[in-house]
Amino acid sequence: MEQEDIFSSTDSQRGAFELPYAKYAVFENGMKLEQGGELPSLTICYETYGTLNERKDNAVFICHALTGDSHVARHTEDDSPGWWDILIGPGKSVDTNKYFVICPNILGGCRGTTGPDCINPQTGKPYGADFPLITIGDMVTAHMMLIDHLGIDKVLAVIGGSMGGMMVLDWAVNHKDRLCGAVLVASTTRSSAQAMAFDIVARNAITRDPEFRNGQYYDPGCPGPLDGLAIARMLGHLSYLSRESMTKKFDSTRNHGRDIETNFETRFSVGSYLAYQADKFNERFDANTYRVISMAIDLFDMGGTAEEITQHIRNTTCRWMTMSFTSDWLFPADQMRELVSSLISCGKQVSFCNIESDCGHDAFLLPNQLSTYGSLIEHFLRNVRKSLAEPNDQRRIEQSVQARFNTRPDYPEILKLIPEGSSVLDLGCGNGELMEKLREKGAKRLMGIEMSERAVQACVAAGFDVVQGDLNKGLQPFNDKQFDYVVLSSTLQTITNVETVLEEMLRVGQKGIVTFPNAGYMPWREILYEEGRMPSFDPHEGSNWYTTTNTRFLTIRDFQEFCAKKGYRIVKQLALDTLKRCTVEHDVNRYANMAIVILTR
Amino acid sequence: MEQEDIFSSTDSQRGAFELPYAKYAVFENGMKLEQGGELPSLTICYETYGTLNERKDNAVFICHALTGDSHVARHTEDDSPGWWDILIGPGKSVDTNKYFVICPNILGGCRGTTGPDCINPQTGKPYGADFPLITIGDMVTAHMMLIDHLGIDKVLAVIGGSMGGMMVLDWAVNHKDRLCGAVLVASTTRSSAQAMAFDIVARNAITRDPEFRNGQYYDPGCPGPLDGLAIARMLGHLSYLSRESMTKKFDSTRNHGRDIETNFETRFSVGSYLAYQADKFNERFDANTYRVISMAIDLFDMGGTAEEITQHIRNTTCRWMTMSFTSDWLFPADQMRELVSSLISCGKQVSFCNIESDCGHDAFLLPNQLSTYGSLIEHFLRNVRKSLAEPNDQRRIEQSVQARFNTRPDYPEILKLIPEGSSVLDLGCGNGELMEKLREKGAKRLMGIEMSERAVQACVAAGFDVVQGDLNKGLQPFNDKQFDYVVLSSTLQTITNVETVLEEMLRVGQKGIVTFPNAGYMPWREILYEEGRMPSFDPHEGSNWYTTTNTRFLTIRDFQEFCAKKGYRIVKQLALDTLKRCTVEHDVNRYANMAIVILTR
Repeated sequence: MEQEDIFSSTDSQRGAFELPYAKYAVFENGMKLEQGGELPSLTICYETYGTLNERKDNAVFICHALTGDSHVARHTEDDSPGWWDILIGPGKSVDTNKYFVICPNILGGCRGTTGPDCINPQTGKPYGADFPLITIGDMVTAHMMLIDHLGIDKVLAVIGGSMGGMMVLDWAVNHKDRLCGAVLVASTTRSSAQAMAFDIVARNAITRDPEFRNGQYYDPGCPGPLDGLAIARMLGHLSYLSRESMTKKFDSTRNHGRDIETNFETRFSVGSYLAYQADKFNERFDANTYRVISMAIDLFDMGGTAEEITQHIRNTTCRWMTMSFTSDWLFPADQMRELVSSLISCGKQVSFCNIESDCGHDAFLLPNQLSTYGSLIEHFLRNVRKSLAEPNDQRRIEQSVQARFNTRPDYPEILKLIPEGSSVLDLGCGNGELMEKLREKGAKRLMGIEMSERAVQACVAAGFDVVQGDLNKGLQPFNDKQFDYVVLSSTLQTITNVETVLEEMLRVGQKGIVTFPNAGYMPWREILYEEGRMPSFDPHEGSNWYTTTNTRFLTIRDFQEFCAKKGYRIVKQLALDTLKRCTVEHDVNRYANMAIVILTR
Repeated sequence: MEQEDIFSSTDSQRGAFELPYAKYAVFENGMKLEQGGELPSLTICYETYGTLNERKDNAVFICHALTGDSHVARHTEDDSPGWWDILIGPGKSVDTNKYFVICPNILGGCRGTTGPDCINPQTGKPYGADFPLITIGDMVTAHMMLIDHLGIDKVLAVIGGSMGGMMVLDWAVNHKDRLCGAVLVASTTRSSAQAMAFDIVARNAITRDPEFRNGQYYDPGCPGPLDGLAIARMLGHLSYLSRESMTKKFDSTRNHGRDIETNFETRFSVGSYLAYQADKFNERFDANTYRVISMAIDLFDMGGTAEEITQHIRNTTCRWMTMSFTSDWLFPADQMRELVSSLISCGKQVSFCNIESDCGHDAFLLPNQLSTYGSLIEHFLRNVRKSLAEPNDQRRIEQSVQARFNTRPDYPEILKLIPEGSSVLDLGCGNGELMEKLREKGAKRLMGIEMSERAVQACVAAGFDVVQGDLNKGLQPFNDKQFDYVVLSSTLQTITNVETVLEEMLRVGQKGIVTFPNAGYMPWREILYEEGRMPSFDPHEGSNWYTTTNTRFLTIRDFQEFCAKKGYRIVKQLALDTLKRCTVEHDVNRYANMAIVILTR
């Protein structure tokens, strides 16, 4: 079993090309191409799952990655496996009992849709190297033709991983009226030079293979550039896995090459794995398609920095769910963050989660992190669908957060301070309890920032936009005065860069609300003064000096002096004794253990 | 100039093979090989710099990496550049006015030393694919033959980067009486599966090139596997650069391919760079050498985990200087740390620095971080040389640390507590001031752990062994009771994992010495109690609640209670009023602002 496991892969390893559930949409008039030229005719191979409802608003469109195809999931128990079976199917995250799922093979592909291996009607021979230069935009234009063909005006969401995410981006930017939600997984606005280098070496390996024959290798007796494509596939695998995952997979058996029949080196386990994957790939993929599609990837450019990206996404109207994986070095989290920053600065609805994983880029196809990315996709689809159904939705709390809410004595007070119809950014929003209450109260716009992956997941499940991030780095993507209120509740005491965070909070919010435990509380003063012990300075944590996660300790007076020094105006100040469960009116620095302050600059 | 810069490289780009300063050592009887078989004769091409002194104890041996050669530095102003010119030469870090530097082309190479392109005396034709399987061990055996030839019994140090570091390791393990110091830069005890995969794909590209002709491509009219070797070289470059450095180099000009004559893709700037480098490489390198040497790299295995490595390094006797670079993903810091852990657990003298750099693996050849790695090498060589000259050396303080020492009132007290002849591990050792004083006092063995790169550098400059690391992760590599004393001076208040660190300190030390500011000091209590402000709890920092880097605040009583709870015995306790500059004898929790405690378990 060990060896089976090592040699398993994310390929759906069908032998001969056979897609029994595939449908074909034929466009006799072809299509014009972005970089000039045209395809005289176009066939799109696609598969669908579930049923399009009467309002035709339950379609979910899947964009596959470089080597995928239309067979995204099984149609029946007996069907061959789909490449995203774990995500899509009846009762799964993308539930085909609810949604009408569409997945086409992309333009330029070799799995049914028009590509270089298809007959050029103008010559009667396969296109080969004559296949025109196509772009991600062209692929999405073909997607538009397909949904027109299916009679769908606007899909609920488009979901894509890796290169598929680039199509999602193009769809959102250039066809904004045709989608409500955009889901990008392990993708980017443009490839890094490093990622491009992998593609370039792969294309060089293909085109320098003597059997490439200038792309015309389809004649009988021509094997095609099998060695070149194999090298390309090996490089692909290298870039899809992380160092950690490769070590786990191969290190204990490093010298145990597998005895397989191949032209490639098999001395080491990792080598025989690559040889095996490459040979398998040669059975199902076309080298010209690899060249053409990887070139489209390298040409794709929606900008590298948030500022550049903004030029493109400024007018998009969809809601966004973006995800990266911590060990993905092909399309790393930092690149996704640039997109997220741009979307934030443009005031778009966006969530982002950098999912902890050691599986590298491939993580989006593997079951390991499905509990996170599947759940995020599932809830995002539900959120988008709900907002369609009830545009001014005052949703009920779906997961009870009442218990926790009751233990956070500052929440009811904060709630009173924020008027109906306000926009609120919650820094360190946790599971979204405060946002939940603010939504019930009729907040206009809510957004959270949170470090914990679990908490981000809970917020999305509760219907919120939330971005995973570290407050200490500031709020750069946000614009000045983008929110009526920015809240920092019971978080100040855990922050490293106090000055940065407060400065940023008052830049981004019309007003800031800060709550913190007041170290000036007399019972705590007495512990230090009389007993010579450090108090916990935390009314409910039960921690001590060596276990507390708090790193900042301050009194209300300290905070007032800090504000005076910084030129912050304290608009309102409340104080609580959370143990006696009452507000404190007089001599608050002595008698309150918690402070709630509204600030402006 | 921009384009020139992009296309500059770490290759010494000589055209024809011409090494005017090369010498040749010929061994008519050849050598036996580790994996069986033998070479019937052996020629080693090498260059030397500087003068071997009379005692023959100033030799520094350089081991080159995969594509290097004997020409490590210029011999004259007019000479062609060497590949490590920035490090080696008169007045440089490896000062050829002081040291006798030797650098050979390695066994299997194609730059003068016997390799696959040389004539096999048994057939009268080049070895080609008949060149036997060689190992890193064989290369080092050839090095031994060379130093014998030069009449050198023991070299001062062996220095190697990347694959060169593997030779250093083999030298230390299998020829321990032939070196005093071992310097490993950007190297590893064995390649990860990811690193091996790059080599394997490269070898496949070479051997599947039809012009490879089973390795016999030396006949006139045979071009050799130029495409295969080019692909290999492109992959090499990919693995030597970091994503950040590639982005810096290519992103702004991504679509500006250079118009060069090449068989490879030049549409993008990164592609034309790779094409240029590959073509250049083909002018100076042999594909069989690439194959043979990269296989030796992949076969090299001194273990992956500290436990495995210990099986190999247990009996080594040299002093070690190890360095990695933060952005090196080919031989990353985590792998070097395993070696360092193993060396620590075996009680070897070792220093380690993970040098901050965005240049990837190539950093060890570039000037960017020379100020760190050059300085570490320079001072390490001096340290090794000094310990040769004066084995029981009571060295003078070379850099004045007196000023700082005087501001640290706990140091003189710690010094009094530690008897002469003790071994001491200093946790958070800073620039080594305390170790300096302990050395003056005649400590037996000193070692430091420190986070800051600058501080690590200062410690090595002062002659100490120091390992860069984060205390919060514990002291796993160290053995139980490895030191008489483990010191944690004025560091407890900055630590996250207090329980781990103290537990570890008492595991590794016979005794622990902890010093910390006492928050029970009455003037501080009064500030909180009477004024309702948080005191700084730091006698000399001048920081406040929002700027302090301290995150733990405790009183002497708190610490005593903590020790009682954990079962730690307080052997001795001192208390200071550092403002009044006196010790405190009575009611120390009130009257001392600093505590010094000796603990055992």
